[in-house]
Amino acid sequence: MTYCLGIKIDESIIMLSDSRTSAGVDNISTYSKMWRYSVPGQRQFVLCSAGNLATTQAVIAVLERDIKTKAPVNLLTVVDMHQASEYIGRVSVACQKQNTGGGPVFETTFLLAGEILGASNGLYMIYSQGNFIASSEQVPYLQIGETKYGKPILDRVAQGKMTTDRAVLCGLVSMDATIRSNLTVGPPIEVTVLTAGSLQPGRYLKLEEDNEYMRNLRITWNKLMEEAVGQLQPLVWPIEG
Amino acid sequence: MTYCLGIKIDESIIMLSDSRTSAGVDNISTYSKMWRYSVPGQRQFVLCSAGNLATTQAVIAVLERDIKTKAPVNLLTVVDMHQASEYIGRVSVACQKQNTGGGPVFETTFLLAGEILGASNGLYMIYSQGNFIASSEQVPYLQIGETKYGKPILDRVAQGKMTTDRAVLCGLVSMDATIRSNLTVGPPIEVTVLTAGSLQPGRYLKLEEDNEYMRNLRITWNKLMEEAVGQLQPLVWPIEG
Repeated sequence: MTYCLGIKIDESIIMLSDSRTSAGVDNISTYSKMWRYSVPGQRQFVLCSAGNLATTQAVIAVLERDIKTKAPVNLLTVVDMHQASEYIGRVSVACQKQNTGGGPVFETTFLLAGEILGASNGLYMIYSQGNFIASSEQVPYLQIGETKYGKPILDRVAQGKMTTDRAVLCGLVSMDATIRSNLTVGPPIEVTVLTAGSLQPGRYLKLEEDNEYMRNLRITWNKLMEEAVGQLQPLVWPIEG
Repeated sequence: MTYCLGIKIDESIIMLSDSRTSAGVDNISTYSKMWRYSVPGQRQFVLCSAGNLATTQAVIAVLERDIKTKAPVNLLTVVDMHQASEYIGRVSVACQKQNTGGGPVFETTFLLAGEILGASNGLYMIYSQGNFIASSEQVPYLQIGETKYGKPILDRVAQGKMTTDRAVLCGLVSMDATIRSNLTVGPPIEVTVLTAGSLQPGRYLKLEEDNEYMRNLRITWNKLMEEAVGQLQPLVWPIEG
């Protein structure tokens, strides 16, 4: 499995992805699931994927080939994030069919974050069927892959008005909860922040398995959870007969 | 869907269940998913179910009929929790086949907690295939139904040495996370505590949708999560070029 998460707040878009690939429990490997395309001052894209690895690699190859061959529609010609999502969705459907005839095991879902000069920045989820949705103001995040373990913290804390630092922390806690509860999601964790309006490649970090910051974050969060439960009022039971 | 949770700590076993039943989003109803059988001083059982409602009701009817008709094996004759689980698993498989011929949509999974005079108390998960597992010291909880949202808090906090009050709080936070993130799990929440060695029916509460304690718990927990994120060290980025 995989867990990728995008959070769109007023000042930026944060993207996080894990790096574990599994085909059965005895065939586990590490692949990056995050791709960054940048033309500073012009356009920025961050793409994350969850699903079939062959399909994902085929889609990435076509996106890059379309740029090189100057295809009529490619990441350098699309005029807004909506058109970028439409294009990637179309490539994804074609890749699923071309090599395999299609079918659920060959599906891939994408998260796309980015900004193009002259248009709004945006965070989109592109389904394996090629259609797509944008994040909303009410729910400022989108998830793909193993989404459930990391959802409660986002539902409780994530808001469009957060600072970027806080949104990154929400994302890392959500990722850590997933890694802890599910073996098929694992480090390194990749994080990118695209600052709204900057049109720069943004901040990027890869947090490896032995990363000290992540280890401290995990220990601190566990301690805070232990303490938080201790601060709750115990359930008051009816008087026993 | 459903979310039921059992936590076995040194001093007791805590059982929690939601009450939402759905057959499609426009056919939502409320059914208790917790059954309690008690012969004070002799034997105590708490049974929770997740799965097909017709199968569940059939199993409960057979368990009660077997007691009335004094069947050779019934909840009043089994000598330990292992045999109780075996018996319920057998009844479940028979009920799935009898009315339907079997098949995944007719499956039901059970959590069984209890204690019988002369034997150890126990917490078991009975699969739809009739086989079953006990909780372990390392992982002192078992879940059925929509288990993922409520798992991270248990993985971080649940331990066999907890007090009963603390285990109940862990369970309620886990249940609340699930209710908040998933529409198919909903109140009332039922909670039972079976104190180890007491052989009494134990404490029981049904927390309705408008329950003030649960509302306060939710507000307090949200506030504690907001504060906890604020106490984390922000990610340190490499110096930007």
